[in-house]
Amino acid sequence: MAPPPPSTTPQVITLVLKVFMFALLLASLIVLVTDTTTVPLDVIFELKVHFDDVYAYRYVLASIIIGLVYSLLQTAFSLYHLATGNRLISGDGGFVFDFYGDKVLSYVMATGCAAGFGATKDLKALADARKLDFDDYFNKAYASASLLLLAFLCAAVLSVFSSYALPKMVNES
Amino acid sequence: MAPPPPSTTPQVITLVLKVFMFALLLASLIVLVTDTTTVPLDVIFELKVHFDDVYAYRYVLASIIIGLVYSLLQTAFSLYHLATGNRLISGDGGFVFDFYGDKVLSYVMATGCAAGFGATKDLKALADARKLDFDDYFNKAYASASLLLLAFLCAAVLSVFSSYALPKMVNES
Repeated sequence: MAPPPPSTTPQVITLVLKVFMFALLLASLIVLVTDTTTVPLDVIFELKVHFDDVYAYRYVLASIIIGLVYSLLQTAFSLYHLATGNRLISGDGGFVFDFYGDKVLSYVMATGCAAGFGATKDLKALADARKLDFDDYFNKAYASASLLLLAFLCAAVLSVFSSYALPKMVNES
Repeated sequence: MAPPPPSTTPQVITLVLKVFMFALLLASLIVLVTDTTTVPLDVIFELKVHFDDVYAYRYVLASIIIGLVYSLLQTAFSLYHLATGNRLISGDGGFVFDFYGDKVLSYVMATGCAAGFGATKDLKALADARKLDFDDYFNKAYASASLLLLAFLCAAVLSVFSSYALPKMVNES
């Protein structure tokens, strides 16, 4: 006889978290890549700054894209699990994949967010000291990093869940 | 009859990792707080830069200090466990403390390190563009962030260990 299907309530919670994380990452991506500002330097010249002029923001972009790909994959896994009652990666592999995947991804997002905040804070201070008005540019960078911070919090909670799921694996083996 | 004492081999490994992490954090701290450079601007004036002139480095400092305090505490816990065979925080509390403590601390170090690298990369590029030779200053910042990165890797491994220790708690309860 097949074992009874596991309760789907935690599955629904993790699915909601994954979808929410995906939405936050997408919002963060859109805010970041549209972050372009033109500041007049004098009557003739103007300074144009695009988001990828700051190296740290390229890392932020990379971390967002990695997060998006992973959360899409995890959402697909969750939907498959909810629909069929089986895990796509059977046996212990699924738990181990979730555990390490969630852990590494949460680190990627945490570092992306920290690099974004760190660079923005100091570059904004430098721009202010030189009386250059890049507030729009840096505020959008802050907004993107803040959304990434919220996505990271979702990832950290998911990582706690997948750690607590490890005993299931040990008990099964 | 008392249960047999758990194998001390993993305890020794975690103790070594904790001590190693402490040493790396201490080295990172020393490199960071001694990061001061004076650059001649012209024949009269010179620019003096101290590590805490960069906001991101203050966050790096905070993350290092939090890491040092936590790794000292964890080393003391490990030594107590090795010496007496008992955990200082008895019952499930110890496992939960280790799990969340290691997790949060590894995030603190990851973000500290990312903020340090992110700010250094862009500020160094700006200094280079303005032909200011702050290479010594930024290279020391890189060195500090690199040591913090190694300490973070120790913290991440410890966090994996404390996650895998959770089943013990669940089985005991």
